[in-house]
This record gives sequence, structure tokens and C-alpha cells, in this order.
Amino acid sequence: MNVRGLAMKQRYFEDLKAGDRFNSGTYTVTEEQIVSFAREFDPQPFHLDAAVARQTMFEGIIGSGWHTAAITMRLFVQTLNFAEGAIGLGVDELRWPNAVRPGDRLQVETEIVDLRVSRSKPSHGVVRLRNVTTNQRNEIVQTMAASALVLRRIDGITRR
Amino acid sequence: MNVRGLAMKQRYFEDLKAGDRFNSGTYTVTEEQIVSFAREFDPQPFHLDAAVARQTMFEGIIGSGWHTAAITMRLFVQTLNFAEGAIGLGVDELRWPNAVRPGDRLQVETEIVDLRVSRSKPSHGVVRLRNVTTNQRNEIVQTMAASALVLRRIDGITRR
Repeated sequence: MNVRGLAMKQRYFEDLKAGDRFNSGTYTVTEEQIVSFAREFDPQPFHLDAAVARQTMFEGIIGSGWHTAAITMRLFVQTLNFAEGAIGLGVDELRWPNAVRPGDRLQVETEIVDLRVSRSKPSHGVVRLRNVTTNQRNEIVQTMAASALVLRRIDGITRR
Repeated sequence: MNVRGLAMKQRYFEDLKAGDRFNSGTYTVTEEQIVSFAREFDPQPFHLDAAVARQTMFEGIIGSGWHTAAITMRLFVQTLNFAEGAIGLGVDELRWPNAVRPGDRLQVETEIVDLRVSRSKPSHGVVRLRNVTTNQRNEIVQTMAASALVLRRIDGITRR
């Protein structure tokens, strides 16, 4: 398989093993995006208006943690590229140790923690993973542990 | 205080006690919003295209769990209306037991679990809470436990 084929391939449960690590592409978040997300989903003063935000403990506008979580999902999905997608089962230990600010360039490192075949849905496997999101100074802006359901190859045959 | 005053008032740490419950307003999510959120943050087949989604285990388009989380934040923020906002410290036990589908009308019930003054930031208190998000059939579409930092009244005087 050539490099292009590798980059484009769809991933199945069997393609992963515990300890695997993946680095995503990057996503640069603008002040306009921060304000637009906050207006729709998290209308709080430190996310909405730079002048007001300067008066807060953050001393400037910061992104909603849910915006960081959404950007993290985008980077994760594009990097892992699971066949038929990854179905989120749950998330724990979602933390935001540093604020995201306008112009920050975010990147996600995914670590596969463990893998098992699903009992209730044997066509799929359950993947436990950790996602760590960092900014351009390598400061951690988000950590989380997640479980997701991903498709298995059936009898060694890749389904399409 | 009249009803209007109650509805508009900003809430402080001291206004809450463990066991308090709050019901939010409602938010009806459209297929267009589901697809638009997914294109930006969670580009997976069961969130993006109704025809493709019909072939999946969901038998139709469903919303991203991160979209549900974002809508939940909006409903929570508007209902609790904390003075100077609530600063998210972390989230655990985020689960999506039922899918969100186009036209679903979501509502959040918040339960205050416990409260303590912040050690590192004595101007604030730490509130632990649970948010349960339901649809118009009263099915649970999301549960979560969260901690947030909210402003205290200083010496009984409401800061502005």
C-alpha cells in the first residue's frame, strides 16, 4: 500500500492496538468563531465580548470548553477516519486546564487505551481512548477519556 | 421581589443549596442545525446525510453528542444565569443513552449536588451539579456530572 493509500484508508477495530498513538492535524480558532459558538451555545461574558472579558479573571476573551470539545472531535474524527464512523458511548474526566484564546492553533493526540469486542453488538468493537488537546505552545487545553463503538472487519473481509 | 425580578435576577453561590432543582426552557433542534454542526465539528455519516443515515443502525439522521452537550450548556446557562457566568472546571459521566433526532425538543433538569467555597479563589464557590437532558417524550438523551466556579456575594453585598 502506498503512502497515499495509507493516508486515505478507512480504519476498522482490528487496525488498532492498545498503546497506539495518533497526532491530528491542526485547527486555528479565531475570535469570530469563539464569539459565534458562544452566542449559540454558551452565552457567558468571558466568551462573548473582548472588552468585558478583559475585566474578568481571564483578562481577555476565551473559548467555551464545549467549543474546544467540538474542535477536538473534528480533529479526532478526521485523523482516525473510522469506517462508518465512531459512535460515542461516553466521556469521563473532561477537563480544561488552560484557556483557549483567539488565534490558538489546536492539535489532538489520541492514545488507544484498550479494545474489546462488543457483547451487545458483535459487528462492532468498543475502543477506550484518551484525547489530549494542546495549543501552539504545547500547553494542554483539554483532556478526556472516551469510549466509542467502531466497526469490525467481518471474517477478514473489509465491508464497504 | 416581583415575578419579573425573580425571573431576571443574577444568581450567586449563596443562592444555591444542595438538592435544589431547576428546569430549563426548551430548545427544538432542526435537521439543518444537526447537519450544520456535524459539518463543522463531527463529520460522520450518521450526522450528515439522511439517506446515508437510514442505512446505519440508527435508521435515520441523529445529532452529534457534542451538539447535545452544547445545547445543554445553552439551556443551563440561561436558566441558572450566574452573575459573571459559571466557569466550567470539569465534566464526568457524560453519556448519551438515546439519540437526538431532527425536531426533538430538548430540556435540561439541573440538580445541585454540593457546594463549597473555593480554596484557591475565595471570591468564588465550587458547585457540583448533574444535568439531565430529555426530549419531548421524556426520554433521556444526555446525562452528565459537572463542577463549576461561580461568584460569591462578598460580605453580603451584591457586586455589580
